[in-house]
This record gives sequence, C-alpha cells and structure tokens, in this order.
Amino acid sequence: MNSRWPFLTPGIPDDLFVRNKVPMTKEEIRVVTLAKARLAPDQIVWDVGSGTGSLAVEAARLIGNGMVCAVERNPDGVKLIEANARRFELHNIRVVAGAAPQALHGLPAPDRVLVGGSGGQLAAIVTVVDQVLHPGGRLVINAVTLETLAGALACLNQPWRVEVVQVSAARAEQTGKSHLLRALNPVFIISAWKGDA
Amino acid sequence: MNSRWPFLTPGIPDDLFVRNKVPMTKEEIRVVTLAKARLAPDQIVWDVGSGTGSLAVEAARLIGNGMVCAVERNPDGVKLIEANARRFELHNIRVVAGAAPQALHGLPAPDRVLVGGSGGQLAAIVTVVDQVLHPGGRLVINAVTLETLAGALACLNQPWRVEVVQVSAARAEQTGKSHLLRALNPVFIISAWKGDA
Amino acid sequence: MNSRWPFLTPGIPDDLFVRNKVPMTKEEIRVVTLAKARLAPDQIVWDVGSGTGSLAVEAARLIGNGMVCAVERNPDGVKLIEANARRFELHNIRVVAGAAPQALHGLPAPDRVLVGGSGGQLAAIVTVVDQVLHPGGRLVINAVTLETLAGALACLNQPWRVEVVQVSAARAEQTGKSHLLRALNPVFIISAWKGDA
Amino acid sequence: MNSRWPFLTPGIPDDLFVRNKVPMTKEEIRVVTLAKARLAPDQIVWDVGSGTGSLAVEAARLIGNGMVCAVERNPDGVKLIEANARRFELHNIRVVAGAAPQALHGLPAPDRVLVGGSGGQLAAIVTVVDQVLHPGGRLVINAVTLETLAGALACLNQPWRVEVVQVSAARAEQTGKSHLLRALNPVFIISAWKGDA
Repeated sequence: MNSRWPFLTPGIPDDLFVRNKVPMTKEEIRVVTLAKARLAPDQIVWDVGSGTGSLAVEAARLIGNGMVCAVERNPDGVKLIEANARRFELHNIRVVAGAAPQALHGLPAPDRVLVGGSGGQLAAIVTVVDQVLHPGGRLVINAVTLETLAGALACLNQPWRVEVVQVSAARAEQTGKSHLLRALNPVFIISAWKGDA
Repeated sequence: MNSRWPFLTPGIPDDLFVRNKVPMTKEEIRVVTLAKARLAPDQIVWDVGSGTGSLAVEAARLIGNGMVCAVERNPDGVKLIEANARRFELHNIRVVAGAAPQALHGLPAPDRVLVGGSGGQLAAIVTVVDQVLHPGGRLVINAVTLETLAGALACLNQPWRVEVVQVSAARAEQTGKSHLLRALNPVFIISAWKGDA
Repeated sequence: MNSRWPFLTPGIPDDLFVRNKVPMTKEEIRVVTLAKARLAPDQIVWDVGSGTGSLAVEAARLIGNGMVCAVERNPDGVKLIEANARRFELHNIRVVAGAAPQALHGLPAPDRVLVGGSGGQLAAIVTVVDQVLHPGGRLVINAVTLETLAGALACLNQPWRVEVVQVSAARAEQTGKSHLLRALNPVFIISAWKGDA
Repeated sequence: MNSRWPFLTPGIPDDLFVRNKVPMTKEEIRVVTLAKARLAPDQIVWDVGSGTGSLAVEAARLIGNGMVCAVERNPDGVKLIEANARRFELHNIRVVAGAAPQALHGLPAPDRVLVGGSGGQLAAIVTVVDQVLHPGGRLVINAVTLETLAGALACLNQPWRVEVVQVSAARAEQTGKSHLLRALNPVFIISAWKGDA
C-alpha cells in the first residue's frame, strides 16, 4: 500500500509511471507476470532488465519487508527506476546499474527472478539463477522476441519445469465517438521452477 | 493469505478450484479483472454471476475484513462457490442463491461490482449498481459474447466513464515433446466508474 | 493477373501500395476479408470506404470482366485509389468520390459489398444494400471499432444471416538479430447474406 | 473453379471437407497461408503433412494445370485427402503415402512447398527443399507448436529470407440469442524464400 496507489492488487496504470517514452511492460502484461511470480511477504525479488522499473515498483509495493533488486544496464533506465521508486515512495528497491549476468554477482540470493530484458544473455542469466535461486523459487521471463522465447525453451531443461502462456491484449481507445481496438504487442510469459509447482 | 494459497497476488491456478466442468474465469483473465477492480481492504464486493466462485475466492482472500457477496442463480454453481470457499478456508464470502437483479436487493451497498455473468439482465443490473455503488466505486464486467459487450457499451452512459480491454491468452500445452499453443477464448474486460479514475 | 502482381491469390504486400501514411487494410486482414467475400468472375463489387483502395485492387485483379466501384469521401483517398489502380494496371475500378450512402445511388447493383469504412452511416448503408444486392449476394464489413461491431449486429436482422470472425495478427519484425512480435490491430470481419450460405 | 466451390479466392468453409475429427488447418489460417504461398498457374506444389488435404484442395483448385503432391504418413489422412480430392472433383492432386523427408524423393521439383506437419523432421525436410526448390520458389510452414517455430527459425539460415506472422482468429458462435467468441488456436505462418521477395 501507499498513498499513490493504495490498492491490494498489481495493475498500476501505465501513465502513472515516469517513462519518457522508454518501452515498458504494459499493465495487463504486468499483472499476469506478477501473478505467475507468486509473490509472498519478505521475498528477495530480482528484476533483471528492469527498464522503467514498472515490475519492480509493483512487486516492491506488495512484498513489505522484502526487497527488489532492479538490474538495468541503460543509464536512462536506471534514472527512471529511481524516479519511479520515489514517485511511489518505495524504499525497498535497490537499483543495480549494470548488465546481467555480471551485475547479479554479490546480490542477495533471490526467491523470485523476473526477466524483462536479457540483452542477449538469457542463457548466462539462467545459469546464475540456477545456482542461487532459493528452494521453492520461481523464474518468470517476459519474451517479446521469437529468439528470447526459443532461447528460454532451449536453456530451461530438466530439472526445471516450465509453463508458457502468450498474452495478447487490445485496448479500446476513444477516437471521437468511437472506440478503436488498439493491440498491444503479444508477450510470452515463461514461468520456471523446480520440484512441485 | 491462507494455507492453501499463501501468495500476495491473485492468480490461483484453475485446477486448484472445485469446478465439475462448469465454465470458469481462467487464471489469466481473473488476474486482469481483479487488477481492474482495484481492490482495497475492507471493501464490499459483489460478484454477480459468480459461477464457480473463482473471482469471489480471489477477492475474498485479498480484502481481509471486507466481504464478497457471490450471487449465482444456478444451484450447481451455488454448491461450487460454497465448496471453493471451504477449500480456501474463507469466511467472508456470502453466497446468495438467486438471479440478479432481484437477488441484489437487500445486499450491503458495494464498493466494487464484478459481473461474470448477467443472464441477459445486464442493463437491469447496471441500473441497480448505479443507485447503490459507493462513491469511488468501480464496476468490472467480463464479456464473452458480442451481445454483452454491445449491451454494456449501450447502458454505461454519462456520467459513467468506461475502459475496455480485450484479453486473449494462449497456453502452451505439452503433447509429447512439443508444446502446442492452445487458445483460451478472448474476453472483453469492461471497467466503469464515475468521476475521476 | 498482371505484371505487378502475377499471383492467383490475394495478399499483395502492404508496401507495394501507394499509401502516404493513410491507414490501410493490412495484408492478412485483406485476404481473410476477400475469402469471406467469395468473389466470382464478372461480379459487380462495391468497396465502400475504400481508403487506399487496397481491397478494391485485390478484388479487381481477380474478377476479370467484373467491376469494382470504390467509394471514398476523402479526396486524398480518392487520389490514392486512382494511383493504386494505375500501379496495378487495372481498368475495372470505378472510383466514386463521395460519402455513402448518398454516393451509392446510381451505381450498378452489386453482387458483393465490402465495407471498410462507413463514416458512422453503417445502418443507412445496409438499408441501401438490402434493397439492391443481387440474389446470392454477400456483404462483408470490416469493423475496427466497437461501435461498428455493435452497429452491424444491430442492423443485420432477419432475413440476413451473419457470421463474425475476429482476426488478430502479429508480425515478427527484425530488430538487430531479433524478431519482435508486433501486433496489428484486431479486426472484426462480419459477413452477411440471405438464404443459404 | 468447380461446381462444389465456384469462387476465385481460397476460403472453403471447414465443414465442406470430409474430416472425421482429424485436426485440420482452419479456413482463416488456410487463406493467409495460401496468400503467403503466392500461387501461380501451372506450379508444382508440395503439401507436406497434408492431414485432411484442405490446403492441397484449395491450392489444386487454383493452379489449373499445375499439380499438388500431398504427402501424408497417416493412412487415415491419406484416405481423407483422396476423399476430399473426389469431393471437389480435382484431378491434379497426387497423394503420396509416407513420411517426409523420405517420401519426398522422386517427386517433381516444387515451385511451392507447404508444410502443415513435419513429424519432428522439419530440419531434414528443409534440407531436401533447399536442394530442389525451383528458383523463385517459396516455402510456407504452419507452426502450431513452439518447437516447430523454434526449429524453423534455427534451420532457415542465410541465404533463406524469412517472414513470420502469427494469426489468431476467434469465431462468434451462436448459443441461444448470443454470440460467444470462440478462439481458434494461434498459428505461426513462416514464409521463406531466397533472393528478392
């Protein structure tokens, strides 16, 4: 909870974030991604390729005394994450400037890992996650390219268990008296875990 | 929170519900619907056309000392809602057997109204909601038919403000060594409120 | 057939048309629309709200000695249709500058009517089509707004028979070494006829 | 043209085919697939994994004196293809019973290759196609699994040029007075060629 967005569920509208035209994970994709992440209080959450920090903000708002490590290599992104953490008055987002997987070393071991962007290093990121993810942990990857989808399937072998869902949303946008259905780009949401679900 | 589903976000997997082949709101649609509902602690939530009670369970789990009134005209549905409330150990779901809008009379005035099924009475339901919805309240309708979509747009006039998003999801289903993309039916999620968002 | 596009099927790539940033019916939508139109040789085809003329060109290329009447109220659109007819060396497109339904009066009675844009006059257009459509004729409406969809369903009553399909396409767009899935806006394709299919 | 389906465009309704519950390429996917194939008169078309023969029938109807080689390893499928060729009075479909790539040897070199099913042998099929496809030829693969999509991208390297589009369709199905939007499974349509488009 906070004064800026006092609701129980994820789903902060896109235009409440500072974003300066940087691509961001859209609200409808964000809420499905966070559902698949199965957040719980006090978790350590890595948000790799955090972009504007929209997933980091939603997660940080929910996990109470947990912490989100928002990893972003783009300096403009780093500033946006900081601006969004301030805007939502969140003190449990640790912004990590740098590229994964290198930037992941030294971070507290995660309960949840979100990957919104991997800079072509998905396999190496999964290798690190594989070593440090807490038991019962989950990895959720958002893939907007066919290569990220194929790469995720290729590296998430046994004993990883994998679920993939593609989400396509279209928003009705008012133009005059009419509502035009405007499509958001489809996103593959890839969830992975070990052992039982 | 509860022992059966101890996570912070909505998104209980479909197969954790008792459902006996009754159609249910699928997980991906449920989480977007609940995001649009903007739940807060202690709210009164009406779930009209509750079906299996999957939305009612997710909402009840989140709103703490609030209450969900789950309205359902189908006796089999009523039993399913009761079974699911028991399964998730929820004591804040009031099951109302009967058809809306009649069955809505006498219920505590709502902060949030979810409409999963309207039995062809959407306009009459909206008329009732219009009279009793608390200030700052929100109405979220799931439309799976073109007629419900058109009917909702027709009756949600000024001063209602309306947002429509269509969500299509496809789940990768393992068949042998392959993952077949299997589509869920698309759903229009219609959110309505008065005054500022 | 013609030298510019010597193939048997519809599906001329979007970028072969002159379009000057005017919105056009995209290739994937065009081929499904034309399939639903069930074109045959020598037909009279009305293309109402012809826009860039992309549907008119595809139809004219196929129907041999038939004729397409391309009706468009926007002067820029009229020029684009003429330019595209020239580009594909088609002599059986009659460009009609003006707004439907008025501009439809005096045109030869149609075997097929395509409606890509109706300028808010869909019901009046359907009334005209209802009077002049040849026996065995078909009407195919592309709806990109919720209002056009609802309006079409409202006015296509008995004895019209109606089929609706929504088509969503996403194209993989190369960006560096990756292919980003970029969504086209979804379109409702509404086919209507009288009597047997 | 033929008496059973006398129209110029592809798009024969699904229920005109004999199919005995065998999965088939749905009408909307078929017309986009055939558009991407860019059929021309007198072509040799391979339809690999022909299933019910629905793509083979549509292609054979259009290419006049050309020929479709419909390759299918499932004996039930072979009978369906033969039944559908009879139903549409087509004499230019050569049914080849057997599994690709072996069954492809000895067939006349193709101008167009459609792959509706590959039985896990996509890379080997592409290797054969690579050797025998006529200059200016095109290969169009329908992928319904993530593995086929990834496999196609992996084996279609330079000098192949590749276009991918995903098509999702939902049909409004009448149930009582309402039209329920029922989704067809999404299909990736992968087109490949060498040299200029």
